[in-house]
Amino acid sequence: MLNSTSKMEVFFKPKTVAIIGASEKPKFGTGTTTYLLNSKFKTYPVNINSDIIFGHKAYRNIKDVPENIDLAIIIVSNKFVLQAVKDCAEKNVKGIIIESAGFAETGTEKYALIQREIEKIAKESKIRIIGPNCIGVTNFHNEFTTSDMDFEQTIRGDVAVVAQSGVLGNVFIDWANSQGIGFSKAITIGNKVDVDEVDLLEYLNEDPETKVIALYLEGTKRGKMLKKVLAEMKKPVLILKNGRSDIGSRAVNSHTGSIAGNDKIYNALFNQFPHVFRVDNFYELFNIAHVFATQPLPKGRNVAIVTGSGSLGALACDEIRKQGLNLADLNKKTIDKIKDIIPNWVSIGGTIDLGPSMFETFIPSIKAIFKDDAVDCVLYIFSVPRVPLQRMASFALDGIKEQFKALKQSAEKSRKPCIIVSFGSRWVFDFVFKGASHYNSNLIIPIMTRINQAIKAFKMMHKYGETVQTGIK
Amino acid sequence: MLNSTSKMEVFFKPKTVAIIGASEKPKFGTGTTTYLLNSKFKTYPVNINSDIIFGHKAYRNIKDVPENIDLAIIIVSNKFVLQAVKDCAEKNVKGIIIESAGFAETGTEKYALIQREIEKIAKESKIRIIGPNCIGVTNFHNEFTTSDMDFEQTIRGDVAVVAQSGVLGNVFIDWANSQGIGFSKAITIGNKVDVDEVDLLEYLNEDPETKVIALYLEGTKRGKMLKKVLAEMKKPVLILKNGRSDIGSRAVNSHTGSIAGNDKIYNALFNQFPHVFRVDNFYELFNIAHVFATQPLPKGRNVAIVTGSGSLGALACDEIRKQGLNLADLNKKTIDKIKDIIPNWVSIGGTIDLGPSMFETFIPSIKAIFKDDAVDCVLYIFSVPRVPLQRMASFALDGIKEQFKALKQSAEKSRKPCIIVSFGSRWVFDFVFKGASHYNSNLIIPIMTRINQAIKAFKMMHKYGETVQTGIK
Repeated sequence: MLNSTSKMEVFFKPKTVAIIGASEKPKFGTGTTTYLLNSKFKTYPVNINSDIIFGHKAYRNIKDVPENIDLAIIIVSNKFVLQAVKDCAEKNVKGIIIESAGFAETGTEKYALIQREIEKIAKESKIRIIGPNCIGVTNFHNEFTTSDMDFEQTIRGDVAVVAQSGVLGNVFIDWANSQGIGFSKAITIGNKVDVDEVDLLEYLNEDPETKVIALYLEGTKRGKMLKKVLAEMKKPVLILKNGRSDIGSRAVNSHTGSIAGNDKIYNALFNQFPHVFRVDNFYELFNIAHVFATQPLPKGRNVAIVTGSGSLGALACDEIRKQGLNLADLNKKTIDKIKDIIPNWVSIGGTIDLGPSMFETFIPSIKAIFKDDAVDCVLYIFSVPRVPLQRMASFALDGIKEQFKALKQSAEKSRKPCIIVSFGSRWVFDFVFKGASHYNSNLIIPIMTRINQAIKAFKMMHKYGETVQTGIK
Repeated sequence: MLNSTSKMEVFFKPKTVAIIGASEKPKFGTGTTTYLLNSKFKTYPVNINSDIIFGHKAYRNIKDVPENIDLAIIIVSNKFVLQAVKDCAEKNVKGIIIESAGFAETGTEKYALIQREIEKIAKESKIRIIGPNCIGVTNFHNEFTTSDMDFEQTIRGDVAVVAQSGVLGNVFIDWANSQGIGFSKAITIGNKVDVDEVDLLEYLNEDPETKVIALYLEGTKRGKMLKKVLAEMKKPVLILKNGRSDIGSRAVNSHTGSIAGNDKIYNALFNQFPHVFRVDNFYELFNIAHVFATQPLPKGRNVAIVTGSGSLGALACDEIRKQGLNLADLNKKTIDKIKDIIPNWVSIGGTIDLGPSMFETFIPSIKAIFKDDAVDCVLYIFSVPRVPLQRMASFALDGIKEQFKALKQSAEKSRKPCIIVSFGSRWVFDFVFKGASHYNSNLIIPIMTRINQAIKAFKMMHKYGETVQTGIK
């Protein structure tokens, strides 16, 4: 199915849409129906029992719609799906998204059989089909979605998500947006009767809106093609692969009806490519993708740590060692500069621990650190307690805005990647977030809540950077 | 220093307090000063330059205070600390908390020497000293604190924290409170010139307000005593030990002036005791302590998983295997009961994946699962997307309240531990939190955001339960 990239456009930029199973009753799919009916995407509701849906003329069958249909979204009950697909084939639609569940994943032969018939139709008709058992796609740039998305709260960005699971298409997107992570496209592929990870990697490799791909995989039916397409990728790909244990595989099997392959084989596959990285959980997947999408590549493996807490600094040192990076050995000039401005009770050891002096000493320290050629990446650990911050809220917010302005300016000037790790309550996270967003610049600095993820991101960026620099894959 | 438990009371229930270095200027310690001056704890401000502080008569020296002082809090600059300690000794105070930093942790011989002199005074005078380089203590039950705590937002509970780092005494307490985790006492011990983890474990072992101890350790100076006191503990102890790598050790060293010991030795030490558990990060430390404090011990290793997402169910299965627990093999009766009520497209494989049917099928399913004697622990994974929840907000909230009522009643009746893992945005977390808090019962059900932590908690609870049941340590 190579060279089918142009055919995939219909899922992201359809001119005409039909929703088969559209209904006014509150159920799965009603949100998508109301959204699309009121959107710029020309949408026809189809329901065997209705003439009017939310004030729009409805059709008994997609074949009755008096216009060509680019994309059909099927949300009827599982027993009606096969007929709906046949109708779509007769109507000669370009693409179908089957969101309905209840096929191979149930473990019932009857429904697995229906799924195979749908698969056959896809092959014979050349209609591209996503699903079943999924929530379809979201295009964050033109705001087309089949996934009940609230675009008032989403962030446009350069990360594309491909996932064999619905939760990645809404629940985790929602979480990620609240952390400032922006997306280009999200595609959930469910039981994969036709469109799979291989097709989407090919498509996204050419997508100008996508810089990095976050892939959640439970198994593949096309191992060789996956290897081929991964080899050809010009963008970093982060992969979360579940179904590692036997009982896990059992659950994965009953989930999307595919066989979760042997974990070691997947590891060997992913490890072949310097631009493919395996991550351990959903949070890592999105946080590290965000770093790839927003930060310049580091020139080396030396990480400087700026912290207000010695303990958290120590923890970061542990992680740097564990991940095979170096703690930056600051030039004497930099240390002298910092020692000049900090009180005598501040520690400049392995890490730069400014302690509670942070508010006065941060700006000159951070400038000196970014300038230091012994520094390739900067980790800033923010761990100021909520209560004193709240007490001096307006003053503190002004202070933090100035800090982040200096941080962003230094990072931009030096072209070095930077990550903030923020600890504490939501109030503190929001405070940091507000401070970091204030100074308007093209540079976004990722904010996380885990030191190990930040260091892992630097490690992967460093590995990727070496590949890009040498041109060797 | 055994049998000194009663002497420790002065740190948590002082009748009279002096703050040496109290000041109206906004600086470290000002929050504590204003709080204590307006609290039920009789507090005398001491400042060499002031007669009045925040409307209260101030004293030039602690020796001038016309009453015996139980506890002196020292927040003056490092160069004045030694003299303040000497004054306290003359005044014959019972306890001192030195919050000022700038001693052995700076790596400067001059300040390390001062620290040793303070140590000598502690030994000779029998005055108990906490610190320096810490933020002291909080007693959440009587609301005594030296740590700038906002008791409107704290939660009383049964978890005690002992930490060689200030961030555990405020930043992480603040985070934990926002997750519903309650505390009895928090003590930060800094450079440990006198009071250390050994003293506090002894004290907390007898403390009726504490059920479980969360200990953050960078190193110990009393390995043998630590081993002895750990052996004698009647309560579970969770330990986060940092300073694992060489460069990490360097930073730890410069932080609290103690030598981070060899990681393997610590592992061997902790592994001797079935009631001592090593955790990997701060979030785990508090989340798992919360489970110990609130949940009954499981009778076996069989975990049932209730989920709306097959992928997250699969992930939980992986973790169960990884941690050496079993996925509960439900009785046929239970499966039949659930199959009776769920739509045909729901999967009952390894996990109970109710999919979007969750709202209708949850209550009878959860009741049957808790009743099943093949189930020892229940994990409920909540991953409903925000947008549809918000759309049907009031209806959904009523639904979730009923769900959690059934969950709590079933958990209470069956005396089986339960953990909720909630994915998604803060809105969803708050929604779950509100639902879970609504049904007033003595039972608190912990809510986390990571499946691996929940499974780890069950594993540790199971190990601890086996010990308690057999009586063998």
